[in-house]
Amino acid sequence: MAGKYTLLARDELVQTIAPRRLVLRRLAISLLLLLGTAAISILLIHPPRPAPVLEQLPTPLSSGDSGAIAHCPSNLPPPATPPVPVNLWMPLTVSETVSISSWLSSEDRGLNLTHGDAAGLSDNFIYLIEAFPPPKAAALAYLDQSADAPVSAPGRYARVTLHLGAEDEPVVRDYLVGPLPVNEDTSIRPLTEIYHIPEIPYNARGYTVPFAELSPLLLRVMAPLAEATQELFDGVALGRPNDTLVAAAIGPYSFDGAWRRAWIPLRRNVPGQWLHPVGFFLYVDFSGTDPAQWRLLKIVYNHQIFDTIESFLEAFHNGTLRRLPKRPDQDPHNTPSSLSSSPSSAAPPRRPSPTSVPPSLEWSTRVRPQTPPRDLSELPGPRQISTSGVRFRLDRRTQYVSWMGWGLYMGFGRDMGMSLWDVRFMGTRLIYELAPQEAIAQYAGNDPMQTSTAWLDRFFGMGAAVRDLLPGYDCPADAAYLPATTHGHAGSLVRARAVCVFEHDTARPISRHTGYGPGEFGAVKGYVLVVRSISTFDYIFHLDGTIEVRLSASGYLQAGYWEPAQEGYGAAIRETTMGSLHDHVINYKVDLDVVGPRNTLLATRTAQEERTAPWFDDDWGSTFVQQKITREYITNEDDARLVYPPNFQGGYALVNTEETNAWGIPRGYAIHPGYSPVHNTVVGSKRLLRNANWAKYNLAVSLRKDAEPSSSSMWNLNLPGAPPVDFDQFFDGENITQVDLVAWVNVGMHHLTQAEDSPNTRTNLAASSFFITPLNYFDSDISLDALNAVLLSPPGKPGDRWGFEDYGVSPGHCVPAPVPPFEYPGVQAFGLDGKPAVPASAEEMRKEAELYHRIKIEL
Amino acid sequence: MAGKYTLLARDELVQTIAPRRLVLRRLAISLLLLLGTAAISILLIHPPRPAPVLEQLPTPLSSGDSGAIAHCPSNLPPPATPPVPVNLWMPLTVSETVSISSWLSSEDRGLNLTHGDAAGLSDNFIYLIEAFPPPKAAALAYLDQSADAPVSAPGRYARVTLHLGAEDEPVVRDYLVGPLPVNEDTSIRPLTEIYHIPEIPYNARGYTVPFAELSPLLLRVMAPLAEATQELFDGVALGRPNDTLVAAAIGPYSFDGAWRRAWIPLRRNVPGQWLHPVGFFLYVDFSGTDPAQWRLLKIVYNHQIFDTIESFLEAFHNGTLRRLPKRPDQDPHNTPSSLSSSPSSAAPPRRPSPTSVPPSLEWSTRVRPQTPPRDLSELPGPRQISTSGVRFRLDRRTQYVSWMGWGLYMGFGRDMGMSLWDVRFMGTRLIYELAPQEAIAQYAGNDPMQTSTAWLDRFFGMGAAVRDLLPGYDCPADAAYLPATTHGHAGSLVRARAVCVFEHDTARPISRHTGYGPGEFGAVKGYVLVVRSISTFDYIFHLDGTIEVRLSASGYLQAGYWEPAQEGYGAAIRETTMGSLHDHVINYKVDLDVVGPRNTLLATRTAQEERTAPWFDDDWGSTFVQQKITREYITNEDDARLVYPPNFQGGYALVNTEETNAWGIPRGYAIHPGYSPVHNTVVGSKRLLRNANWAKYNLAVSLRKDAEPSSSSMWNLNLPGAPPVDFDQFFDGENITQVDLVAWVNVGMHHLTQAEDSPNTRTNLAASSFFITPLNYFDSDISLDALNAVLLSPPGKPGDRWGFEDYGVSPGHCVPAPVPPFEYPGVQAFGLDGKPAVPASAEEMRKEAELYHRIKIEL
Repeated sequence: MAGKYTLLARDELVQTIAPRRLVLRRLAISLLLLLGTAAISILLIHPPRPAPVLEQLPTPLSSGDSGAIAHCPSNLPPPATPPVPVNLWMPLTVSETVSISSWLSSEDRGLNLTHGDAAGLSDNFIYLIEAFPPPKAAALAYLDQSADAPVSAPGRYARVTLHLGAEDEPVVRDYLVGPLPVNEDTSIRPLTEIYHIPEIPYNARGYTVPFAELSPLLLRVMAPLAEATQELFDGVALGRPNDTLVAAAIGPYSFDGAWRRAWIPLRRNVPGQWLHPVGFFLYVDFSGTDPAQWRLLKIVYNHQIFDTIESFLEAFHNGTLRRLPKRPDQDPHNTPSSLSSSPSSAAPPRRPSPTSVPPSLEWSTRVRPQTPPRDLSELPGPRQISTSGVRFRLDRRTQYVSWMGWGLYMGFGRDMGMSLWDVRFMGTRLIYELAPQEAIAQYAGNDPMQTSTAWLDRFFGMGAAVRDLLPGYDCPADAAYLPATTHGHAGSLVRARAVCVFEHDTARPISRHTGYGPGEFGAVKGYVLVVRSISTFDYIFHLDGTIEVRLSASGYLQAGYWEPAQEGYGAAIRETTMGSLHDHVINYKVDLDVVGPRNTLLATRTAQEERTAPWFDDDWGSTFVQQKITREYITNEDDARLVYPPNFQGGYALVNTEETNAWGIPRGYAIHPGYSPVHNTVVGSKRLLRNANWAKYNLAVSLRKDAEPSSSSMWNLNLPGAPPVDFDQFFDGENITQVDLVAWVNVGMHHLTQAEDSPNTRTNLAASSFFITPLNYFDSDISLDALNAVLLSPPGKPGDRWGFEDYGVSPGHCVPAPVPPFEYPGVQAFGLDGKPAVPASAEEMRKEAELYHRIKIEL
Repeated sequence: MAGKYTLLARDELVQTIAPRRLVLRRLAISLLLLLGTAAISILLIHPPRPAPVLEQLPTPLSSGDSGAIAHCPSNLPPPATPPVPVNLWMPLTVSETVSISSWLSSEDRGLNLTHGDAAGLSDNFIYLIEAFPPPKAAALAYLDQSADAPVSAPGRYARVTLHLGAEDEPVVRDYLVGPLPVNEDTSIRPLTEIYHIPEIPYNARGYTVPFAELSPLLLRVMAPLAEATQELFDGVALGRPNDTLVAAAIGPYSFDGAWRRAWIPLRRNVPGQWLHPVGFFLYVDFSGTDPAQWRLLKIVYNHQIFDTIESFLEAFHNGTLRRLPKRPDQDPHNTPSSLSSSPSSAAPPRRPSPTSVPPSLEWSTRVRPQTPPRDLSELPGPRQISTSGVRFRLDRRTQYVSWMGWGLYMGFGRDMGMSLWDVRFMGTRLIYELAPQEAIAQYAGNDPMQTSTAWLDRFFGMGAAVRDLLPGYDCPADAAYLPATTHGHAGSLVRARAVCVFEHDTARPISRHTGYGPGEFGAVKGYVLVVRSISTFDYIFHLDGTIEVRLSASGYLQAGYWEPAQEGYGAAIRETTMGSLHDHVINYKVDLDVVGPRNTLLATRTAQEERTAPWFDDDWGSTFVQQKITREYITNEDDARLVYPPNFQGGYALVNTEETNAWGIPRGYAIHPGYSPVHNTVVGSKRLLRNANWAKYNLAVSLRKDAEPSSSSMWNLNLPGAPPVDFDQFFDGENITQVDLVAWVNVGMHHLTQAEDSPNTRTNLAASSFFITPLNYFDSDISLDALNAVLLSPPGKPGDRWGFEDYGVSPGHCVPAPVPPFEYPGVQAFGLDGKPAVPASAEEMRKEAELYHRIKIEL
């Protein structure tokens, strides 16, 4: 059982253990060899805490006795052996971006660049530098090279986004820079072939510092309104640290780039501000690069519309303003009644609130309510241990993971975070690329904010916004973590725990039968490998070749102001707060290669048929109804935008018609719906006119092209009328028979909000998933090869015990390492010079994280 | 953290630990108090294996040092405190059935009963005795009594099914017997009010000994066919132990009870016989009670129909019989090619086959294929431990479980197995009864067998067929097990591990947010409690008040004979074996009581609307489209048979319009679709004409009545034309506003079979579920009260670490008890006298388990 471990390379160890610890630990191990039994026991019963156990082999606590309990081996994953030594999709390091930035800033380039951390709207600066994947053909040539015909890794390239505010006609442009590292052959050219418009209008540009950008305008508006907002909402926004109102700016900000405008809701500046809208909205124009031209377009309050500050104030003063009722939401006596019915008999002393949240505001925070703890809830719940070490392998250098026949490389990008590449199962490539593409959150309401909200979260950068995982809470205690580095116009961020990897016991056998004949009775344990980052993207790998792609949502609602006119657009979750009706739809690129890249789309349907059969002629009658399958290859791309059939009677798969399994059936992989298989409810909204048409289907399948790397772009949010990536243009009548195909698959959720979404939505119901699962790809269930399995044989004679074969896998018995104390270091920031940045304050981190979602006006 | 444990009552201890062990262990604990540190360490490093640790408090291995590692407390669940001391739905014990049987057999009853284990078709005998639940009103009066007005438990009653073969017109009748225990007030009366037909036709009766019943007829047919079957199928069925063919009898067996007939497929008598059909079918009539009258109606082979043995043999001999090709399925060289592509470098010696399966037949068994093990698969996977003991409570006497505010009683019955009763959350009843009702498996094909198969598994008794769970494989090593006793005409069966209960870490927080304001950042761990029996019924309880009801299927297909004429009805999974297209639909009774029994059905829909708003008048235009919710109470039962709306735009809930949450919204619970939310594909099949009409919908809601306890009955299988329970008759136009409602909810699977279903279907894809989840039932997310949670606070000054509150719950560090060695004792049988029966042979157990699905013809 043991003996298959390899010692970790030293550079892996130092990532998790300080060098001094390492030396101490080695001393302890040496002592083991010298001292007697009793002393050893004492020594190792008090292991250094919380140093991880280094050695992979179980260390007996006591020698010479078969009953000894050893320490469990370390949870450090053993090293993996990636198929090739280069991860072709590896993100750029901080120093790589610094060198590219330096090269771009050279006068030879003539780009007239200002440093991104100092640039204004009218400057040219580097908005983004990140790795650009190689063409698939070049990648495959490298990946699939044979020993006798070696192929070099394709050149490494970067995509560079420049904000060109200093141009006569300010614009955003993408460039391709490479090969890398920078050398005399490195060149730059516009990267246009992946977009459907030649350049990005400046009014559709990404954010830089939203609060700084909008503050002067908002201050011009809010200052004269201070008297009114104080009376109406108990708050002001005057650009002071203790401002009691904050703003947000609702997207999209443009239709086609001709202008840049936003609805600005106001919220109370309290914990959980998302749930504290006051029902007051500004509409502003901030087109172009001259803030002096920016202006207020409208004020809306309680269904009353004012074109100017003056007309609003006039109504406010002359008594014609119809006012919303005062908000009782912060009444401290307003304890929800249903929470007091706990049956728990224990009423232990309540711990003091760990935060500075006033009790009346705790409802919009995650502060534990003042209810008695539930029975036994003060005990830690179960947690998993690995008694022989973890069973997945990890190569940190190439960000490569392997487990039970699976292997994959990871990539990471600003727009959508983690992606998986060259996913192989049992040695054969199954997926070239698996990556989220875009996330819609489209709201409804009877107010200017929710009605007009149609977020496409790629704009904000779901990779840039990846959250550090909380060990023991977001992932099990024995998970392994991988870092992610994202780059922005003002520097880079490194998150040490951007991704976690762990094996999980689903606590359910993957297959199981009770039988009485030889070989019929047994079970295979249902382990899975989970690769996770949050926003909660889970990739769950099963023993049978199935991948479940699951998204679980949590966090705050974008709440509306509750009043009777909002009926039908959500539900009250507090006196004057509503959860607004909205749809989430999230698109994934699944570049399946089913036994090679030449694949065909199979649509299967079942329907009822009425037939007669000659063998039926008794009282049953010869006519009968039953179901029947029709299988059709969809040959034209235009017919490959698909919804699941009613009652899920059938489905879709990519098959390779040139490769059959042993029973003559084309080998395939199906896209199988999981939780909440929905598409977008709304079709034809001008705010999502052409920029997210993938959301109208459950899935779509197109011919794979290097020039169609993604179904969206970060600018699609602001260009519904002229999207940089127009998904519909992927579908241009091409024949898709035995060609390289991509499935664009959606998950999502119709979020009909409810009280239980407050303060945060729960992941158990806010979950959506799909399966990528073998369909006659194998000749039988391959997971039957598992050794964590049991096969029973009936007793030889009546009354005997049943025999069993457990393949020599014992559950193991050892002392697990203590769980390291919880700690949350937060992100590590680097400046444009590649040096560690000055640590940010909480407020600065907040601004960086919440962007247009919470604009604290600054002077 | 500690100190809340109660010592287990002695009778709970002895259930799992032999008394002698107990004494030894106490000695060991005493020693602890006497010896010095080094000695103690040595002593406890060698604990008695595998005795469970008894004490609930962690026992330090070494005293006086905070770094000591203690043994983890026992995994024995601490005792629960059921709300009332009587489980009103407790199954009958063996001795109870014996006393009822004795009372019924008394001459005073005049029932002319023969002992069930000796009865023939023409005798009267007791087919079934089991507990019959009390009327709900009486149960509620008892459950909800107040201390000052005590109410006794309602009388206990048994349902008794008599097979009355000795009557002039043989018939099956149900009776109600009680009160129990048997006393002078005990009486018997026909139980007819729960059925829609007055009595059960004898031709629709349940099985007794199917092989014995059908053997004489089948032998009469098969013996003269032996020469032909030997040549065509390499097999015979001559009633000898080494018969190489077995039969089955496909249901339904009748339409309205006027006759009893079955299609009889033949299969090879080999391991995994389900996958070895030979494509030869008999149609037989076995109506009435006189086997001499039974007869062959037809022989069908390769689309040729013969009315007699003679005409078949004539064709066989004269060369006109069109023969199926010889079956190469057992060719030992036929190793599936795709299995040989394993990337595992390790090629350890293969363990010898643990069974006596010939290699050429291993494909239809669970014997591990001869492929190299996957990398690291020889190591045990992760398993969960509870470092402070398990957190659920169990009262074995009343079969009551509690966990984190949840509490429920369990029942168990012959027909459908485990049921849950009086399910309360946070002290309030949520569900009165939650129980599976029926399971359809309806097939399609181009042969007499699959075309005519429409199983309703209640006939076979899904409770009687419950499988003992395999510790460590079917449930985690630290699960608790509960026994189930089922009664039949020939005795009772006790299964020690019919149900398992365990807490599971989903490895995913139930809620989570990263925030920077006070109280915004934290996570609550997503623990669940699982209550499981197999056939895999899972009830998964969540911290937020949600229950996920999940069914996961595995096991053998009912395979068909593959030949080109079967195209469209499945897929080849071997040369001449096909997986046949079929639908599974399983119905659950969900007797929700949302804040009391007066509830109303709420249907919610979302749809797109086009509107104008006065505040939109710029380039976006004043017209916009968005979605809107409509909410409608369904007031008439006839309108309450429901399918999920297209694209899941809306859903269904039971709400109490007289109870609102703090925000004025009726408190409710929603039925939310999970995996594979399907209904039956086929409508109008004569073989499911009126006996399973619940399967046409995703769910239906009816007025709850004691006289409508179930949507089906065990006889519904054989009476599609005159079902004992006619679901449609539940829907008779009644007003269902604020009355006691039952939701009848379906899960299911359209099983378009594939090669990977061989040898057994996998549970990850063959899964279907629904959620019972709060809908404005609370005022906010109640799971936020969890203590296994973390709340972070941003650093006070830049660069500081983040603060956190973990509510004093530490992950715990202790030595887990070794996992007890695997063992499988099998069932314990009792005779009609209540005494342990002679142990059964494997073949006898097999016959008991496989019933009509595998008929080994006997002389």
